[in-house]
Amino acid sequence: MSDGKPIRLGMVGGGNDAFIGGVHRIAARLDGRFQLVAGALSSTPDKAQASGAVLGLDPARIYDDFKAMAIREARLKDGIEAVAIVTPNHVHYAAAREFLKRGIHVICDKPLTSTLADAKKLVKAAQDSDALFVLTHNYTGYPLMRQARQMIAEGVLGKIRVVQVEYAQDWLTKPEDFKQAAWRTDPARSGAGGSTGDIGTHAFNLASFVTGLDLETLSADLQAFVSGRQLDDNAHVMMRFAGGARGMLWCSQVAPGNENGLRLRVYGENGGLEWAQENPNQLWHTPYGEPKRLLTRGGAGTTDAAARVTRIPAGHPEGYLEGFATIYREAADAITAHRAGRDVPADVLYPTIDDGLKGVQFVDACVRSSKRDGAWVKLAS
Amino acid sequence: MSDGKPIRLGMVGGGNDAFIGGVHRIAARLDGRFQLVAGALSSTPDKAQASGAVLGLDPARIYDDFKAMAIREARLKDGIEAVAIVTPNHVHYAAAREFLKRGIHVICDKPLTSTLADAKKLVKAAQDSDALFVLTHNYTGYPLMRQARQMIAEGVLGKIRVVQVEYAQDWLTKPEDFKQAAWRTDPARSGAGGSTGDIGTHAFNLASFVTGLDLETLSADLQAFVSGRQLDDNAHVMMRFAGGARGMLWCSQVAPGNENGLRLRVYGENGGLEWAQENPNQLWHTPYGEPKRLLTRGGAGTTDAAARVTRIPAGHPEGYLEGFATIYREAADAITAHRAGRDVPADVLYPTIDDGLKGVQFVDACVRSSKRDGAWVKLAS
Amino acid sequence: MSDGKPIRLGMVGGGNDAFIGGVHRIAARLDGRFQLVAGALSSTPDKAQASGAVLGLDPARIYDDFKAMAIREARLKDGIEAVAIVTPNHVHYAAAREFLKRGIHVICDKPLTSTLADAKKLVKAAQDSDALFVLTHNYTGYPLMRQARQMIAEGVLGKIRVVQVEYAQDWLTKPEDFKQAAWRTDPARSGAGGSTGDIGTHAFNLASFVTGLDLETLSADLQAFVSGRQLDDNAHVMMRFAGGARGMLWCSQVAPGNENGLRLRVYGENGGLEWAQENPNQLWHTPYGEPKRLLTRGGAGTTDAAARVTRIPAGHPEGYLEGFATIYREAADAITAHRAGRDVPADVLYPTIDDGLKGVQFVDACVRSSKRDGAWVKLAS
Amino acid sequence: MSDGKPIRLGMVGGGNDAFIGGVHRIAARLDGRFQLVAGALSSTPDKAQASGAVLGLDPARIYDDFKAMAIREARLKDGIEAVAIVTPNHVHYAAAREFLKRGIHVICDKPLTSTLADAKKLVKAAQDSDALFVLTHNYTGYPLMRQARQMIAEGVLGKIRVVQVEYAQDWLTKPEDFKQAAWRTDPARSGAGGSTGDIGTHAFNLASFVTGLDLETLSADLQAFVSGRQLDDNAHVMMRFAGGARGMLWCSQVAPGNENGLRLRVYGENGGLEWAQENPNQLWHTPYGEPKRLLTRGGAGTTDAAARVTRIPAGHPEGYLEGFATIYREAADAITAHRAGRDVPADVLYPTIDDGLKGVQFVDACVRSSKRDGAWVKLAS
Repeated sequence: MSDGKPIRLGMVGGGNDAFIGGVHRIAARLDGRFQLVAGALSSTPDKAQASGAVLGLDPARIYDDFKAMAIREARLKDGIEAVAIVTPNHVHYAAAREFLKRGIHVICDKPLTSTLADAKKLVKAAQDSDALFVLTHNYTGYPLMRQARQMIAEGVLGKIRVVQVEYAQDWLTKPEDFKQAAWRTDPARSGAGGSTGDIGTHAFNLASFVTGLDLETLSADLQAFVSGRQLDDNAHVMMRFAGGARGMLWCSQVAPGNENGLRLRVYGENGGLEWAQENPNQLWHTPYGEPKRLLTRGGAGTTDAAARVTRIPAGHPEGYLEGFATIYREAADAITAHRAGRDVPADVLYPTIDDGLKGVQFVDACVRSSKRDGAWVKLAS
Repeated sequence: MSDGKPIRLGMVGGGNDAFIGGVHRIAARLDGRFQLVAGALSSTPDKAQASGAVLGLDPARIYDDFKAMAIREARLKDGIEAVAIVTPNHVHYAAAREFLKRGIHVICDKPLTSTLADAKKLVKAAQDSDALFVLTHNYTGYPLMRQARQMIAEGVLGKIRVVQVEYAQDWLTKPEDFKQAAWRTDPARSGAGGSTGDIGTHAFNLASFVTGLDLETLSADLQAFVSGRQLDDNAHVMMRFAGGARGMLWCSQVAPGNENGLRLRVYGENGGLEWAQENPNQLWHTPYGEPKRLLTRGGAGTTDAAARVTRIPAGHPEGYLEGFATIYREAADAITAHRAGRDVPADVLYPTIDDGLKGVQFVDACVRSSKRDGAWVKLAS
Repeated sequence: MSDGKPIRLGMVGGGNDAFIGGVHRIAARLDGRFQLVAGALSSTPDKAQASGAVLGLDPARIYDDFKAMAIREARLKDGIEAVAIVTPNHVHYAAAREFLKRGIHVICDKPLTSTLADAKKLVKAAQDSDALFVLTHNYTGYPLMRQARQMIAEGVLGKIRVVQVEYAQDWLTKPEDFKQAAWRTDPARSGAGGSTGDIGTHAFNLASFVTGLDLETLSADLQAFVSGRQLDDNAHVMMRFAGGARGMLWCSQVAPGNENGLRLRVYGENGGLEWAQENPNQLWHTPYGEPKRLLTRGGAGTTDAAARVTRIPAGHPEGYLEGFATIYREAADAITAHRAGRDVPADVLYPTIDDGLKGVQFVDACVRSSKRDGAWVKLAS
Repeated sequence: MSDGKPIRLGMVGGGNDAFIGGVHRIAARLDGRFQLVAGALSSTPDKAQASGAVLGLDPARIYDDFKAMAIREARLKDGIEAVAIVTPNHVHYAAAREFLKRGIHVICDKPLTSTLADAKKLVKAAQDSDALFVLTHNYTGYPLMRQARQMIAEGVLGKIRVVQVEYAQDWLTKPEDFKQAAWRTDPARSGAGGSTGDIGTHAFNLASFVTGLDLETLSADLQAFVSGRQLDDNAHVMMRFAGGARGMLWCSQVAPGNENGLRLRVYGENGGLEWAQENPNQLWHTPYGEPKRLLTRGGAGTTDAAARVTRIPAGHPEGYLEGFATIYREAADAITAHRAGRDVPADVLYPTIDDGLKGVQFVDACVRSSKRDGAWVKLAS
């Protein structure tokens, strides 16, 4: 719950022409819990200033260097309490570290880092800090994903047997000519995974979040179909979870006709659940032997966990920005509690740095397995 | 475009437990163009204060009387520039008048008023004011409805022949036990129309917005299926448009299985368009004789008018709140231009008081026709 | 049930290039209950012979005159027991009469006749005959329409309030250039109704079949959008049923993007049902206040009436031909019982000549109402 | 094309309570090209007689031993020309051999045999015979699968990169209590594969049929989730095709909410195709960079190969039985040509014994790979 005082937020990355920065800003605004007051929106000074001006930032709090921002804001009486990091992957670690070490909460885009080494260092940095770390695996903010998680945790499906998850896109079908594509297909900036890092981590995270299952080993076959591409643009992964469940994960950026085709299907001894991100207000539930039921966000059968993050009645769709905003609202609840010296309430739920580490381990394992011709590998410890 | 200075906004109605007030506030916040600074959120003083406190309003700018708010805010140096009116229908006229006469822009929920007489007086009041009047027929804010409108205006379908529009809900299937239902089924507060006023006006407005057609006459058969209900809860309407197009409109609040089933289908000499609000990121277009095409918000084939109000790429759904926020953003663009003494830019598009009058005329005509056993009647002039 | 001896069938109409004749033949063959042994497939001798030869008919039993066929077959020891009449509408009456008067069962395409006068005479002819009369309103053969009928009859929806039915096509969007279109848009051969007769009767019949409601009055607005067309190609109809239910019916042959868009939605006090012909193996059922359920043909929740006419397990689609064949199989069961001197079993269900009369009355009422500017009219007695 | 003389057909298996025998009989009847005249419907004499009587067979041609039937029918002047073999898998080889060696054409259910050894012997037997061998991989009979195959062969998608195919059911979610389940989960009668043999072979065959790709190696992870089950009930398979395309195949009989969820998605350099068996009259085609198109069976964009096997116009669904019947009609065309000493026409298309061998090799490879912990294995030669 809000204490009536918006949280002072800074942002690293997210200059004028960056897609994801704008998303984070809308997400931060939507529930009125944050106020953006500072930014290192670009490392190019002119662009940093121009981007900040559009957002109405005080010119004195527009930076072109995240470290300078961390140092100065930490000293200000009304300095930022939290920072959103929305840079390319390879900058996440260095940026997050500067804020964590100064007790500034971090809200970081995914994947956590571009290398496993960085990820581990960042986990250490977070452990050493009193500040909170929130990773924006935004799809976990969709109310029906909260509902699916609760239903599975409460045993509605029985023991889980099969997990089918996929995230298909088509925007890299041809040799890339987008800005966003440039860094996403560059190992130095993106990390060892292409589609696996960019969207496979979302798929893996969502499956883990919803089922509560721990991935033990995987077998991966990665491809780079576009000539000259250095990172995978399509990946096939078989998964074995602790407890005996098995799964498949497909991620692709070369599947024409798919925009953001993130789909999750989970089958247990007593029932199944099916969901697709592009129409996130519907969740199919089949109790074995009964008709399939269409659960709607906010409709009949809504669980506590879903109702808690639902803003409007059934039949009026909530979308991507609302799901993203839920992560920010959860972060706000946690930060507000932290501000008051209280524990984070038990029902506040957001992806953590541990989830981030698992994501980086997932990419690492995919790459290792694929290099070994699909051998089953464990996630690196 | 923002000039960097948020518009100072007040709100009439929208106390703690009101649904639509919260929606307006999110809509106002989402693009960062408004700042809520005052409110007459309830006519009950305690409730007004409590509701304002949660929103972080200055206690001095929390009112329990919209007229007092209008008078005082108009005198403040930094008084509100615009007011959102989110009360039950019968209060719209009296409230809007107070702000219009003081040059404060009005953003008003629909339907415009509860009576035709009030609607006409409000039109006069708006004409006499320099202030802008924006009606939140929010469904016109969906990007694909902008696209459909543009496609039809540009002749993609050829001359329009048939319009099928419907808005079906089920929440009044049983005798009502909701707060929202209480005033919506009370003629004194809601007006002469039940489902026709509450949702039929949305359907009529959307069909008019998208097709650009003028309704000439209608024939209506209204029902109140729930025993003791004073206002229609289901309505069947046949329509004849200027130029020869014909249509049907169905609105219902007693159709189990429908949440907010607003659907629009338009057929012309050369093609058809089909859209449903519950999955608003898809628009079906069939050029006659060719395969049906699934147009997605932001996807291939996006028109200028749609792109202008799209925030995120295709495949990441935008929903109801984004559409609503688009009306606010349009209002912000218009108010910003007004503030600077400029004309409202030509591409800024929002429902006006004239649309509101037409909606009230539509309800009036439905009621008159139904009383005359479905005789074809003109909209009252 | 079959007694092992196929029913000897003749056919009137259905020569080589006729669409519906081929459908009737597949329907008759599918369950192995009929054997086609004679035909007056065309009134053009050469065409009659050629069409019969392809079907392997004995040349002696290929006729070019249905009356000659009726006379001769009635005298043959192994003459036909039943005849399928698949000619244009205006021939139905004269042909059916010849067979009925000779005790030969008639399976007749819809609508029953092209004029109300003919329909009444045919009813009389059927009453005077010992032979059975089956009308191929084939959509009543879909298992899930049987199921919907049973659910409603058993009170699953409670008292019915609202019926929404539509049948939309697009093949007459442009001035016609098809053979099938030629007679369908010619009043002399088709009757007073265009789209109302061709597909509106199907929609009306299906709604009546499923709900069991009797139509009392209707108000219609018929259009012929294509210049020069003599019969309606689009119709809007409001309906009032005995007992208080209300409905809307839309039929159109000028709605681009619709192939055979027959859709039925029924809402009662306690629930709703929704179905669409183009995917006939799914039926949506919403018990009020519970999640929507997707009932599948043969799946969980299948009723007796549906199971009785289901051939294959759930998930393997049955289609149009199977539904059509079910009418033939029902006819076969009735004829087999008749052959044995038994009553037709109670669960055998097919559209009768009374349903056919109602269809012709429906078209007549639509035309009369539309000429009187949508006045509410009763079905002619 | 028919020569007017139905093909005399016998059947092995398919007694009264067998599901698939009834399907084959409908398929054989639907287009009027076959006449069932003999049967070894059961190895239990009473049941064989009773089953034959219901079908109206001459008692002298009802057998309880397929070999006796082959011997006698081969000697009859009007003996069967073709036989349908619809027994459990382990009988296919022995039965087919008897007919092939006597020049009687064989139409055999899938999978070809229960063992790879039998499959190879049957291939030899077919090579040594003048008779035709048709395998009823019925899903290849769907018109839109023919269309997809043609589109890909003509290069509409460009070079194929990714194949996603799955066949999910739920009927074996619990320990089985069905007759059909009994032999399907018994290695002695079904073969080494459970879900892989029963439905995985369909998925593999369909993907191969549509794409024209040759599978080189696969990596499989098979599971038997139900305690005590001897054969796989769920399988995850990664595939590598000649030429560089990659794929995933999932088959499951323990996925609640799936009836016959056979789905195929194919992505190439220039576009994608998506299809699902449960609504087989729709095919999604996305040319890269353009809106997704919904191709309908018989609708705009129908290709020659699809039109050739389409019986009714667009919008009237054809289903499983029609697709199955198409295999029979193709068989009839081939047999009719053979009867006349002509070559089988080039456009006649049916699954052959080679396809059957590949299916058995596929199952064998899945089992071998899974036993080797998912090692990539080649199909056995």
